[in-house]
Amino acid sequence: MTVRCILPAVSQRATFQEQLRAGWRRSGSLLGIGFDPIPDQFPDPVSRDRAGVLRFCLEIAEAVGDLVCAFKPQFAHFAALGAEAELATLIGELQLRFPDVPVILDAKRGDIGSTAERYALEAFERYGADAVTVNPYLGPESIKPYLAYHDRGVIVLCRTSNPDSGWLQDYPAEDPVYLRVARAAAEWNAHGNVMLVAGATYPEQLEAIRDTVGDMALLVPGIGTQGADLDAAVAAGLTRDGAGLVFNTSRAVLYASARADYTDAARRVAEQLHERLASARDSCAVT
Amino acid sequence: MTVRCILPAVSQRATFQEQLRAGWRRSGSLLGIGFDPIPDQFPDPVSRDRAGVLRFCLEIAEAVGDLVCAFKPQFAHFAALGAEAELATLIGELQLRFPDVPVILDAKRGDIGSTAERYALEAFERYGADAVTVNPYLGPESIKPYLAYHDRGVIVLCRTSNPDSGWLQDYPAEDPVYLRVARAAAEWNAHGNVMLVAGATYPEQLEAIRDTVGDMALLVPGIGTQGADLDAAVAAGLTRDGAGLVFNTSRAVLYASARADYTDAARRVAEQLHERLASARDSCAVT
Repeated sequence: MTVRCILPAVSQRATFQEQLRAGWRRSGSLLGIGFDPIPDQFPDPVSRDRAGVLRFCLEIAEAVGDLVCAFKPQFAHFAALGAEAELATLIGELQLRFPDVPVILDAKRGDIGSTAERYALEAFERYGADAVTVNPYLGPESIKPYLAYHDRGVIVLCRTSNPDSGWLQDYPAEDPVYLRVARAAAEWNAHGNVMLVAGATYPEQLEAIRDTVGDMALLVPGIGTQGADLDAAVAAGLTRDGAGLVFNTSRAVLYASARADYTDAARRVAEQLHERLASARDSCAVT
Repeated sequence: MTVRCILPAVSQRATFQEQLRAGWRRSGSLLGIGFDPIPDQFPDPVSRDRAGVLRFCLEIAEAVGDLVCAFKPQFAHFAALGAEAELATLIGELQLRFPDVPVILDAKRGDIGSTAERYALEAFERYGADAVTVNPYLGPESIKPYLAYHDRGVIVLCRTSNPDSGWLQDYPAEDPVYLRVARAAAEWNAHGNVMLVAGATYPEQLEAIRDTVGDMALLVPGIGTQGADLDAAVAAGLTRDGAGLVFNTSRAVLYASARADYTDAARRVAEQLHERLASARDSCAVT
């Protein structure tokens, strides 16, 4: 048994940037689906064990895959269950079944440079993810090891969607931390593989981020369960070519029904979100 | 197979706070040892696989255990190797062999409240860690799920030891982010289980943190490989009763020798650091 043998082969996939652009062109979708498996909330027919976690996520993916531009498994929801093997299998299966849809590992890593190298290895080689989310609290050097993977996405937390995110990120009022992060991210983006997290729940800050970073792609949580105003968020963040945004929803789709119709219910919610996003985008194009 | 069955029994251990205070009293040590296993850097006699990772960490622990007040396995170094099982075994073995030494899982988690609940479950129930490190970028609500475990330590990143940590943490100059975090941490500490990370490499900020948080315990990285001035850091951070600090070193001890004498070499480095810390503390007590 050697350590090297656990690294999966990440064959001839397109780069993260190419996948994302192709996805926007092909499906016209601005919708990403997150996988936050919580066995206690699984629909009745799904077993509440690790095998059930994998089955549930793949069933949801099959139900909504043609409607999305990204998948986003959330690390804690697998780690809490000891389901790393299932996370690795899920990522591999998603890439096999949906070769054009990038898979974002939402792990929000943040550590000093030498440790960040190990986290980059974990995300991009062990799990073979197309992109990973990272936290900027430790400064620019802590982001660099991820940027060294030019073909993978590095998605930096900027202005998150949760209620008290402004406590640190909007501070100080005259030139807040989140804008400092946005300006730095624009500098880090020499290979076009940097994205920022900008919550749909704060359209004003989302617009300020868009003004700061040009056409950089943004990962936008906060729709679905968190209930942001979609029209305002699309208007605030859309790029000139009508794309540049991945609106992520997880719980609203995953737990759309607790009964046997859960994949149908998940698809209905995803379709509604997809249509509302398309309609919001079309309104922006008209004006 | 149900999900519940993977949770280990976390029996009759003392609380994190009791362990830490008892450790300071018993050994007089301010030294913590971190486990950052990198197989490529292992001494020649240790196999460069997951079995070697566990063996190496336990051998180092046995060599230095009587000199320390805390152990700190670093998550990325296990995750990059797919060594979650070895991490869980290491934590359990350390707690069995050194019942008075708290084990800190250095994972620097940071996510919205509902996800933080899953990370807390991972750290405290799956791995049974006595404490976990967390990142404050997402705000106070993202810390609360960890605080709900009153008997475990919650160690919040405040002013980290790496060279460009000031980029975000020292901003803005008039009332920097790190002091805002320190003031909040003092409020979160109703159960005495909150600590802050304050790098030894920035004694001025360490002193400002100490002035802000009273006798709160601080985790102090940056000695050893990062080469901070120990005397300045001890003087800046020591509490009135000559404790309150856990100076962490990892690489300087782990990789003290690449040959068969690696446990002896690790002990020598740990002894030197232990003595230098004791001497710095005694100087403070005299003045």
